Amino acid sequence: VKPVIALHGGAGAMRGITPQGAKRYKAGLERALAAGYALLEAGGASLDAVAAAVVELEDDPLFNAGRGAAYTADARHELDAAIMDGATLRAGGVAAVSRIRNPVLAARAVMEHSPHVLLAGRGAEVFARKHGIVFAPSSYFHAAKRFAAPRKGTVGAVALDAQGNLAAATSTGGHTGKLPGRVGDSPIVGAGTYADNATCAVSGTGLGEAFIRVALAHEVSARMRLAGEPLARAAAAALAQVSRIGGDGGLVAVDRRGNIAMPFNSRGMFRACIGRGGARVVAIYR
Amino acid sequence: VKPVIALHGGAGAMRGITPQGAKRYKAGLERALAAGYALLEAGGASLDAVAAAVVELEDDPLFNAGRGAAYTADARHELDAAIMDGATLRAGGVAAVSRIRNPVLAARAVMEHSPHVLLAGRGAEVFARKHGIVFAPSSYFHAAKRFAAPRKGTVGAVALDAQGNLAAATSTGGHTGKLPGRVGDSPIVGAGTYADNATCAVSGTGLGEAFIRVALAHEVSARMRLAGEPLARAAAAALAQVSRIGGDGGLVAVDRRGNIAMPFNSRGMFRACIGRGGARVVAIYR
Repeated sequence: VKPVIALHGGAGAMRGITPQGAKRYKAGLERALAAGYALLEAGGASLDAVAAAVVELEDDPLFNAGRGAAYTADARHELDAAIMDGATLRAGGVAAVSRIRNPVLAARAVMEHSPHVLLAGRGAEVFARKHGIVFAPSSYFHAAKRFAAPRKGTVGAVALDAQGNLAAATSTGGHTGKLPGRVGDSPIVGAGTYADNATCAVSGTGLGEAFIRVALAHEVSARMRLAGEPLARAAAAALAQVSRIGGDGGLVAVDRRGNIAMPFNSRGMFRACIGRGGARVVAIYR
Repeated sequence: VKPVIALHGGAGAMRGITPQGAKRYKAGLERALAAGYALLEAGGASLDAVAAAVVELEDDPLFNAGRGAAYTADARHELDAAIMDGATLRAGGVAAVSRIRNPVLAARAVMEHSPHVLLAGRGAEVFARKHGIVFAPSSYFHAAKRFAAPRKGTVGAVALDAQGNLAAATSTGGHTGKLPGRVGDSPIVGAGTYADNATCAVSGTGLGEAFIRVALAHEVSARMRLAGEPLARAAAAALAQVSRIGGDGGLVAVDRRGNIAMPFNSRGMFRACIGRGGARVVAIYR
């Protein structure tokens, strides 16, 4: 199997993005793509590749995740992330954590070292500290946010590895002004993140509440499995359900044959992929 | 449309339940059934009926929700709940809240008075207090737990009202010894709770982590919508997916025609329903 990776750095109206800004965003997407694909090319696991790609995006202050996370209504940061292994349906997530440098790595620790799938708030932080997850001072999250405010969006990655295993990971700072304690779709398996070797791996970005209400990521998988739809049609149909209830955003998905879909119903979506043939796409608008 | 209601008070091995204890559990289920069905018979909304039934079960120390909630690994209580309106796909949930007397009412406040679907921890409590949700001293949750320890399980209700609207609600204390911050399937729309007028309303109980990983409640709905399966087959098939990854438990579901399914793969499930013809079932074992 030829490895494949696709990722996103958020979807939206893309207001105020200058040509120079667009270049910076694309460079960030390229770095994440390279980090994930290098592992896949070396025969690594899709789970490692999506984690590596998301870590790059979390570390980049341009994107609304990790370092670049949005401010809550009480001017703090609350981060959400999830990761899922399509081979076993194992999954892990953290929600509303405040000082974890790379929430996707905490999500992975939940998957690998706890009997649970989702930990929230202070309990999640206590667990993460116990498992060697790196914390950052709050100044780290305040740095370098001149590029885009207010913020919404999410980062995420999906991949198929040479062993035929699918994985997905998503991470976000939520959106500016969200209520403290708000949990979006990103850390929720079935909503913003899903992976099943039988079908596909999905990571979503957009109005999280709408994604939860239609169980977007699981819906893409269910459409392939239960209705026999190909990936592109399943992804578009699931996103249309989001539109129907007034939501906007997009998703990246890859299926077990290495097909890629990156639909969005907003003006733009930061996205990038490397397909089966090695062709690379890095784009923002249609 | 003839109204229909079904509810559960948890599933499991039912160890240590004496005949006298079984009688008490059944009386609790009857009270919840009566509370929900009275509203439906008077032409009330399914959303009100499922909330009323779940409030009764939360107030009953026999069941692992509200007053009877299990203890976490650090000997506290952390409650989860969700509610969903099948007519609009609106939904609300709270996770890891500690002193809210009826978490299902806090979940409903999230649905009705916030732009969010899920609030966790302290942020959820601040929001609930602002919206007039009743808090209880921690002694309230310590009372009257002699009946069953350790605890797991969940309470939940689904209903179809005379207007043809479906609704679902679920509430839980999680399970004894869970890590602080652990979020189970109950408050997660798509996992433990789902309602869509086009298909069915579902509330699950069991090993929450497995329910999240297969998106159990949304899977039942997806099977009806995408594969044309009748309710009973969809519910059984979704539960079989839980079994396949080592999970146990059960669910209650009602479809838009008023059919009811209450499958479980554990030894027993506290359950009760009143069907289209007015026939009443209150049962624990097969």
